[in-house]
Amino acid sequence: MKVVITGGAGFLGRRLAIRLLEKGTLAGPDGSPLPIDQLILLDVVAAGGLSDPRLRAIQGDIADPVLLRRVIDADVGAVFHLAAVVSGQAEADFDLGMRVNLDASRHLLEACRAAGHCPRVIFTSSVAVYGGELPALVRDDTALTPRSSYGVQKAMGELLLSDYTRKGYVDGRVLRLPTIVVRPGKPNKATSSFASGIIREPLNGEEAVCPVPLDTRLWLLSPRRAVAALLTGHDLAGAALGDDRAVNLPGLSVTVREMIDALSRVAGAEVAARIRHEPDATITRIVGGWPGGWDTARAEALGFRGDGEFDAVIRAYLEDR
Amino acid sequence: MKVVITGGAGFLGRRLAIRLLEKGTLAGPDGSPLPIDQLILLDVVAAGGLSDPRLRAIQGDIADPVLLRRVIDADVGAVFHLAAVVSGQAEADFDLGMRVNLDASRHLLEACRAAGHCPRVIFTSSVAVYGGELPALVRDDTALTPRSSYGVQKAMGELLLSDYTRKGYVDGRVLRLPTIVVRPGKPNKATSSFASGIIREPLNGEEAVCPVPLDTRLWLLSPRRAVAALLTGHDLAGAALGDDRAVNLPGLSVTVREMIDALSRVAGAEVAARIRHEPDATITRIVGGWPGGWDTARAEALGFRGDGEFDAVIRAYLEDR
Repeated sequence: MKVVITGGAGFLGRRLAIRLLEKGTLAGPDGSPLPIDQLILLDVVAAGGLSDPRLRAIQGDIADPVLLRRVIDADVGAVFHLAAVVSGQAEADFDLGMRVNLDASRHLLEACRAAGHCPRVIFTSSVAVYGGELPALVRDDTALTPRSSYGVQKAMGELLLSDYTRKGYVDGRVLRLPTIVVRPGKPNKATSSFASGIIREPLNGEEAVCPVPLDTRLWLLSPRRAVAALLTGHDLAGAALGDDRAVNLPGLSVTVREMIDALSRVAGAEVAARIRHEPDATITRIVGGWPGGWDTARAEALGFRGDGEFDAVIRAYLEDR
Repeated sequence: MKVVITGGAGFLGRRLAIRLLEKGTLAGPDGSPLPIDQLILLDVVAAGGLSDPRLRAIQGDIADPVLLRRVIDADVGAVFHLAAVVSGQAEADFDLGMRVNLDASRHLLEACRAAGHCPRVIFTSSVAVYGGELPALVRDDTALTPRSSYGVQKAMGELLLSDYTRKGYVDGRVLRLPTIVVRPGKPNKATSSFASGIIREPLNGEEAVCPVPLDTRLWLLSPRRAVAALLTGHDLAGAALGDDRAVNLPGLSVTVREMIDALSRVAGAEVAARIRHEPDATITRIVGGWPGGWDTARAEALGFRGDGEFDAVIRAYLEDR
């Protein structure tokens, strides 16, 4: 089968591609493994650096319906839809967020519907679909009350995917990702960008700014576990999900202080000392509105696994970077 | 100020127009009443039969962004967005539902945003945003779990309106309407169409088909109360709603049997005898999935009122038809 990854040049898309090429198969419609003949990395920037005869990089606009219909044909068995404009950027540029986070998702679902064979679509959503007053434990079926344009666009994408699934146009699965830490590379415009920055920059010998109080609690997932979750999300039977296609992935609940302590243990106190504390009221307010606790029993029963401890997350980053 | 009613030729739009012309004012941005200088009825069909110098009927496609930008200028203080494709039709024609229930709503919000003065937008949503397993009492903040394309489109419209409000592009209010009974005229393609039909047709000397069991419980609102709710929804201060812009309107909870008994009392047993019972599995299943109980304390605190008893609803219909 053909597999498409949107945002395939991004850090998660690239890791997923490497893992899929390594594994070589994905579950087919009846659950038995099918070989991946072609892996298409669709992204607005060039996806370079990987070499495999099965790989095909297509550079283009994810919100272009003509391109999507050309890429998603009846041989495409799976689409991992990772392309998105991050939270801070979607808030700053409303139209761009709507175009990439909503319109592109809709065009993608329409392309799948036009192909006519109900491919599996794995859509990455976010804990930003929650906001306002929340219960002590957030569950998969907690009301979506986004307080950001990014969260609204993701929530709308979830609703669309759910309806396209109900109608039999796609076999959709929504994975709501915790904050992915440690992201490699440069800071991005996500509100949560600092969560990787306070680990990554000190390890690179650079100073990092921590904009939130030390007792701020975060809900994290390592890139390795995120990639594993994407595979799990694809391979499980649709019937196991039933009508509720969205799953909050199990995360690791840690405070910023615990993250910095782990950095000290793994890399030394002098590395952790490179973190400068400079509270930012806006970021603190937004992060403070994120859910405090999670009930991920359903996700665990479906086979999703979170990280065990933050020290291991840092060590994995050092191995993979 | 100018006021726009989309779906202004529809039965609710027309009633709302009559009421607004009669009242002559709506609350302005500071809460004090402003005279309505112009009332625009925008609809795909001609809005005829009403005569008033303030009235202007515009026939056109509600999903046409150019038309919407022409109609919604900086003098428009209020938009009542009633235009929609009903549930059965949105399910049968997915693309039409998306176009009218989602795209038109978005174009309308964009036109308001372009006008740049944050007009009030009253968006009628539906109890079809709920589905699946529901709590014993549904509240305004119960999770939206639509199980129909109509419900998904309305839920997406709610999310959009909420974000446009948060961004300051509009001052939005969402009213989730119970089933409006008694609708005049012909049956439509709404799943709930029978709820009016079993009262209206017998009163017109015609036979009606009841497709659900007698103990089926419905959640009803009379046209008079619906129009009053639209005015209340417009006039209340945005701050009274806070972040949660959607309100489940108080309804009247009655079984089909109670409705038929009321018809007997008001119009005679020979009229009620014109109802033929012919169970329809699809309609019974959909209606059976609607919420059983409602907590409308918030709506009542905001000033919304439901109907007292069903006999009065029938009598009001006989007066107004």
